[in-house]
Amino acid sequence: MWDKANLPLIVLVRPQLGENIGKAARAMLNFGLTELRLVEPRDGWPNPSAGPAAAGADEVLERATVHPTLADAVADCAQVYATTVRKRGVTKPVLTPAEAAEAIHRESGRSALVFGPERSGLETDDVALARAIVTVPVNPEFGSLNLAQAVILCAYEWSKSQSLAQPTAEDLLPPAPQDELEGMIAQIDAMLEARGYFHPAGRSATTRRTLRGVLTKPAWNHLELRTFRGVLTHLNRKPRDP
Amino acid sequence: MWDKANLPLIVLVRPQLGENIGKAARAMLNFGLTELRLVEPRDGWPNPSAGPAAAGADEVLERATVHPTLADAVADCAQVYATTVRKRGVTKPVLTPAEAAEAIHRESGRSALVFGPERSGLETDDVALARAIVTVPVNPEFGSLNLAQAVILCAYEWSKSQSLAQPTAEDLLPPAPQDELEGMIAQIDAMLEARGYFHPAGRSATTRRTLRGVLTKPAWNHLELRTFRGVLTHLNRKPRDP
Repeated sequence: MWDKANLPLIVLVRPQLGENIGKAARAMLNFGLTELRLVEPRDGWPNPSAGPAAAGADEVLERATVHPTLADAVADCAQVYATTVRKRGVTKPVLTPAEAAEAIHRESGRSALVFGPERSGLETDDVALARAIVTVPVNPEFGSLNLAQAVILCAYEWSKSQSLAQPTAEDLLPPAPQDELEGMIAQIDAMLEARGYFHPAGRSATTRRTLRGVLTKPAWNHLELRTFRGVLTHLNRKPRDP
Repeated sequence: MWDKANLPLIVLVRPQLGENIGKAARAMLNFGLTELRLVEPRDGWPNPSAGPAAAGADEVLERATVHPTLADAVADCAQVYATTVRKRGVTKPVLTPAEAAEAIHRESGRSALVFGPERSGLETDDVALARAIVTVPVNPEFGSLNLAQAVILCAYEWSKSQSLAQPTAEDLLPPAPQDELEGMIAQIDAMLEARGYFHPAGRSATTRRTLRGVLTKPAWNHLELRTFRGVLTHLNRKPRDP
């Protein structure tokens, strides 16, 4: 019933309460998701409050891994979805949970659904890592989903469209894992830094975020990334005399 | 935005904890549902534990009504949906939350979504009042939805099939016109040509096609293309001395 090979994983970024980690695990397992990754859980890990709240979803907690950064947590993922409440000025595609579920089933490679801390949600730099944003369309006058509720709605939508999963074209490569993308971004960043692209310093964070957006959008696969890195390597050389 | 005339109401039959009544109210209001009816709440009503758990959904709690029986609570309803986990020997239609939401929108008259007590769920006599049964399709090896989670999934599905204002990608620009794309490709081509990227000449047509594929895939918009051309302009400069 569950296609174990391509289950999306759930990433909780800086979760505060162990109880909420347990509730998220319970929400996941209800819909067949088992892989949980934690980025800097506030109270460390394991957390004694998580187990009781998981209501039997212990296998999810036992298998959970802890990561120092979101980039590390999604390094092997081809598709990263950041969940946020509606954001202004975001230039990434905004999907409903149903649309994200369809996309996860349609594309190949591992997918991650990323959730921010209970109160504040994901920070801009976390969102910047993602290919797309997932927003639950809530009552505009009362949007108050807690962490486990956001997780359960996404997990539920994924399990719903599970039966609709289409076999993907074999010759269509998945987007390269996130760490390959990061390698390319680091390469171009160093080249641009050496050429003064990020000056003035006061604007460099914004400039970097814009550049990251441009380079993340293509969802290049392994071969395409390799081609692009070859291009960069050549561009780093001096032009020949004509 | 919300079709106030035909909002389904939520009926909680013999709920045990005030906290769960509050959580259900919060779940409802997130998706625009405001009418809550309580049948024989164990600890009476109002319940001081409900308010804090409602996290601001006080209007739902204040308007909640108490009823001696389920029959009384749904007396004015044209469609009654009983949510259950197991369905032994049930001869009624069994719907998913999505199917129930569609039915509610399709038919006229008031609808009620009925939820049983936390531990035991609805009794057979309660289910007998319903036209149809709603069951959330959960992991067959781990079905552990709590009351508020069952409510939120049903409310979410109802709101989905309501024509909600979805977060749109309104600030997403369309891909840039082809001539802008060609201008960028010509720029990078000239830079790469000067650096020997297309050698040996016998493979240059294939190499160009591959590169074009990589650069066409992103479907960059006007602003993204402008950013990328700025990157190229900088990469064409000599690196500064460290």
